Amino acid sequence: MSSIPPRPGLPAGAGAAAERRDAARNRERLLAAARELIADCGAEGLTMDRLAEHAGVGKGTVFRRFGSRAGLMLTLLSESEADFQARFMFGPPPLGPGAPGMERLISFGAERISYVMEFGDLVLAAEHASRGRFEAPAAVLWHRHIEILLREEGFGPDPWLMAGSLAATLDPERLLSLVKVHGVSPERLTASWRDLVTRVVRGA
Amino acid sequence: MSSIPPRPGLPAGAGAAAERRDAARNRERLLAAARELIADCGAEGLTMDRLAEHAGVGKGTVFRRFGSRAGLMLTLLSESEADFQARFMFGPPPLGPGAPGMERLISFGAERISYVMEFGDLVLAAEHASRGRFEAPAAVLWHRHIEILLREEGFGPDPWLMAGSLAATLDPERLLSLVKVHGVSPERLTASWRDLVTRVVRGA
Repeated sequence: MSSIPPRPGLPAGAGAAAERRDAARNRERLLAAARELIADCGAEGLTMDRLAEHAGVGKGTVFRRFGSRAGLMLTLLSESEADFQARFMFGPPPLGPGAPGMERLISFGAERISYVMEFGDLVLAAEHASRGRFEAPAAVLWHRHIEILLREEGFGPDPWLMAGSLAATLDPERLLSLVKVHGVSPERLTASWRDLVTRVVRGA
Repeated sequence: MSSIPPRPGLPAGAGAAAERRDAARNRERLLAAARELIADCGAEGLTMDRLAEHAGVGKGTVFRRFGSRAGLMLTLLSESEADFQARFMFGPPPLGPGAPGMERLISFGAERISYVMEFGDLVLAAEHASRGRFEAPAAVLWHRHIEILLREEGFGPDPWLMAGSLAATLDPERLLSLVKVHGVSPERLTASWRDLVTRVVRGA
């Protein structure tokens, strides 16, 4: 999703290869600058003008590369989703394999909450643009991940459905509303998630 | 919300009172006919034409009364929401007061699932028209109701936040997606809710 096809009409040969390398470097530089802007000013602060200024390129370059602000947002989100997925599937414990299912569950929620805090507006924008909150490929993957960890912990009755219920509590719109409207801290969200999964796995 | 103000321009006096009684009776008859149609054909099956035919009145009467199909839907929903609220706040146990908190919690989810199965499309339509899923008056009331029952059962750590997490698992869009897309039965949803709240209240 995140790779940008070479522009049509590029000349073939050695010059083209060098130009592709340049383009890839430019793209990475722009994305890094965009992440810096989000870290400093939040997603709302990321505009095409500011990005061009911050990266020291012309505004035309930014538009040629990403098409629009929405295109830039989706590129950023797709890279960060892929990174998040790689971390819970293949990364180091306790989020990745190697830790007990319970610790991985707790860590998954904690990391997901951090992720929503960092990319919240992007996540919402992407959800609204996609084919529904529950059928998006990323949502299906998290649901399945939670189910596998519940099974690993010997959860009996209906692990698939319970995994969906647990995933529902991490709904980005809900988490952002709790933080923005009710002033709940991310730490409190994480503590409540830990409490919830501990009770669900241990209780009965 | 469900009362319809008398039309402007009605003549005052005894004739007007009789006319108001007639209008109220007519309105009740139309709403009863609309509920029958929903019970028979689902919310999609409720059209202004069918309602007029089923109630044996002219189509103009139906439009004068409710303005539009959306207006009719909102009137039905507001009456059924009020009915549901009255049942969990003042009705007979185990949904209403008198049963232990745990039984009331289980019953609340079961009744809410039935409610969404019956009024699903109406609920979604109303949510999309309102000011956000989490701040709607009805949602605030359910959240608070679950919180009170958790406190009654001696739930310690963060009953308000946990109540919100439990309420999130009853999100109508989620429940409808499970039933329509994944073929999950309402009975299975209810069993998983019972399992969830039992673990949350008893576990730790």
